[in-house]
Amino acid sequence: MGSLTMLTNVLTKLLNIEYPIIQAPMAGGVTTSKLVASVSNAGGLGMIGAGYMTPTQMREQIRELKQLTSNSFGINLFVPNEFEVNEDEIRSSNQIMNSFRDELDLPRKENIEVPNFNSVYETFMEQIQVVIEERIPICTFTFGIPSADVIEELKKHNIILMGTATTLREAVANEKAGMDIVVVQGSEAGGHRGNFIDKDQESLVGLMSLIPQVVDNIGVPVVAAGGIMDGRGLMASICLGAKGVQMGTAFLTCIESGAHQVHKEAILNVEGDTTVLTRAFSGKWARGIKNSFISEMQAHQNNLPSFPVQNTLTQDIRKKSGEQHNAEFMSLWSGQSAALAKSQSVETLIQNIIEEAKRLKNN
Amino acid sequence: MGSLTMLTNVLTKLLNIEYPIIQAPMAGGVTTSKLVASVSNAGGLGMIGAGYMTPTQMREQIRELKQLTSNSFGINLFVPNEFEVNEDEIRSSNQIMNSFRDELDLPRKENIEVPNFNSVYETFMEQIQVVIEERIPICTFTFGIPSADVIEELKKHNIILMGTATTLREAVANEKAGMDIVVVQGSEAGGHRGNFIDKDQESLVGLMSLIPQVVDNIGVPVVAAGGIMDGRGLMASICLGAKGVQMGTAFLTCIESGAHQVHKEAILNVEGDTTVLTRAFSGKWARGIKNSFISEMQAHQNNLPSFPVQNTLTQDIRKKSGEQHNAEFMSLWSGQSAALAKSQSVETLIQNIIEEAKRLKNN
Repeated sequence: MGSLTMLTNVLTKLLNIEYPIIQAPMAGGVTTSKLVASVSNAGGLGMIGAGYMTPTQMREQIRELKQLTSNSFGINLFVPNEFEVNEDEIRSSNQIMNSFRDELDLPRKENIEVPNFNSVYETFMEQIQVVIEERIPICTFTFGIPSADVIEELKKHNIILMGTATTLREAVANEKAGMDIVVVQGSEAGGHRGNFIDKDQESLVGLMSLIPQVVDNIGVPVVAAGGIMDGRGLMASICLGAKGVQMGTAFLTCIESGAHQVHKEAILNVEGDTTVLTRAFSGKWARGIKNSFISEMQAHQNNLPSFPVQNTLTQDIRKKSGEQHNAEFMSLWSGQSAALAKSQSVETLIQNIIEEAKRLKNN
Repeated sequence: MGSLTMLTNVLTKLLNIEYPIIQAPMAGGVTTSKLVASVSNAGGLGMIGAGYMTPTQMREQIRELKQLTSNSFGINLFVPNEFEVNEDEIRSSNQIMNSFRDELDLPRKENIEVPNFNSVYETFMEQIQVVIEERIPICTFTFGIPSADVIEELKKHNIILMGTATTLREAVANEKAGMDIVVVQGSEAGGHRGNFIDKDQESLVGLMSLIPQVVDNIGVPVVAAGGIMDGRGLMASICLGAKGVQMGTAFLTCIESGAHQVHKEAILNVEGDTTVLTRAFSGKWARGIKNSFISEMQAHQNNLPSFPVQNTLTQDIRKKSGEQHNAEFMSLWSGQSAALAKSQSVETLIQNIIEEAKRLKNN
């Protein structure tokens, strides 16, 4: 087989990996140590999606991972965005949630303890400390850019920083703030939208447009994310100017992933593209496979509490739905390429990507 | 320079062109004979956007074009979708339009003569007759699939048929109906959305997802459209499985294009991606650069008459705005890659695409 020198580049060197393939840091139980270690051991970059983790959970998983791989792996954190806790909004959302709780035989709730911004921010700062203390080589961010102090502190410890952007403007802001790498999240991407400057609609840019615009305007390596599932997507991203790819849905359905079996099956059995954007689960827009919860919440979408308040309000519903193997009330995050997902091992996925990339290169 | 055999394929053979580059059939005055002939003469496929043309205008342009090029060119028609003429909706839209008319020193209007479905359908059938009589080798469709009778008639005359799809389901429907080629319009695309089965939101699929899903499921050649501006986009589309590309915005800002100078400048001077989807201009969703008209109409968006009724209602406003060189009330259609547009000749654009594609191939 021909050599594929374009796949060994500034990105693979920075991240100290063999192939320019990053496993997207899917939060909420998907990125088990098994998944992350398999990716890193197969030559990609495994990532812990630590957004919802306590510092203690983070430390435990990091230590577990160090036993499972001697290769690089990274960790992703959610940059806290200011939010208000509005009692009226919470009450009215809770009332809607109670109808779902009835359907799922869950106790109704009147009051729910929700986080406030200060506590979320404090946790974030503790997470940063764990990253430093555990000498994680790569730390990535979603939902914004950390403060200059945090960035300086991480850089002092030689941690490679990677930010997320959904538009050119956001990519430029990431580079300016000192990020070493910028992940551009196309409108194709599953899960939460990472936009933090541009508004929701204007931040839905397809990768065919987003990648070349960004690489023409920033100097640091760009990683493409959204709808990339195989060697075709990797090579297309590289043609457009990206140095590598970050893949979520493709890893989510892998055997090693910790995603719920119902979630995996919903993706594997999808017919065509049937994903939609919703903020009903968390208060933040995210892409997933349409189910009853999304449909029934459509009408209420613009009057819900912000992230992460709404996320806390739906927690028992998502959990119970999972326990019942009921796909209708779970957040079935998926990118627009669900139809291309396969149930396979991480090693097979990565090897197939590389083989296909080589075939395309030699065509 | 290395050979680029992947650019000579079943598509270039079917269309009898040198390069797999199709100029998108932008309706409304953009596809002047100068533009179309320049594209065909430079080795691509020039296309007349005849959607809004009378049969007589079509025939005149075809005859003019035959003097300007001996190469293949094609023509695009809008497949009529049934619509209702609702007097109340028209009156209420007209009231809103009157405030814009005031701003533009246009006479207020109380009643406007709008087309009805029968007249639109009759015109379409006459357009089909012109295509046959003038022996146009390639006929393409947007907004749906013509009836089996129309398809049979065109095929009897050996006309190559190309349909437009925004989702896998729509692509499959096009192939089933007998289309020889399917254009997949990604969410990146400028101008009108071509969805005709899937609903608006669900039909916004990025090319990174749309191309591979479609090529895995249909047998006829697939052409990618949306956000493609240069050799990077062409090679990315080919990596994803398309046989060629259809480019609108890239040709719109060419020197030979008939687009209004104000429209060209709005695209050339855009900062980052600032396109939005609106149905305010025509009653059908379309992507363009945000201006006052779009912003002010946002609130009314869901109560407007259907296409093409609303299009008729805004005609005087768009026209007068153009006459005044006022960008704020024109439909500034553009794809999400506006930032990559250049003012150049068609030949330079096409030559640069091919050079860049070769460089990428030999990297």
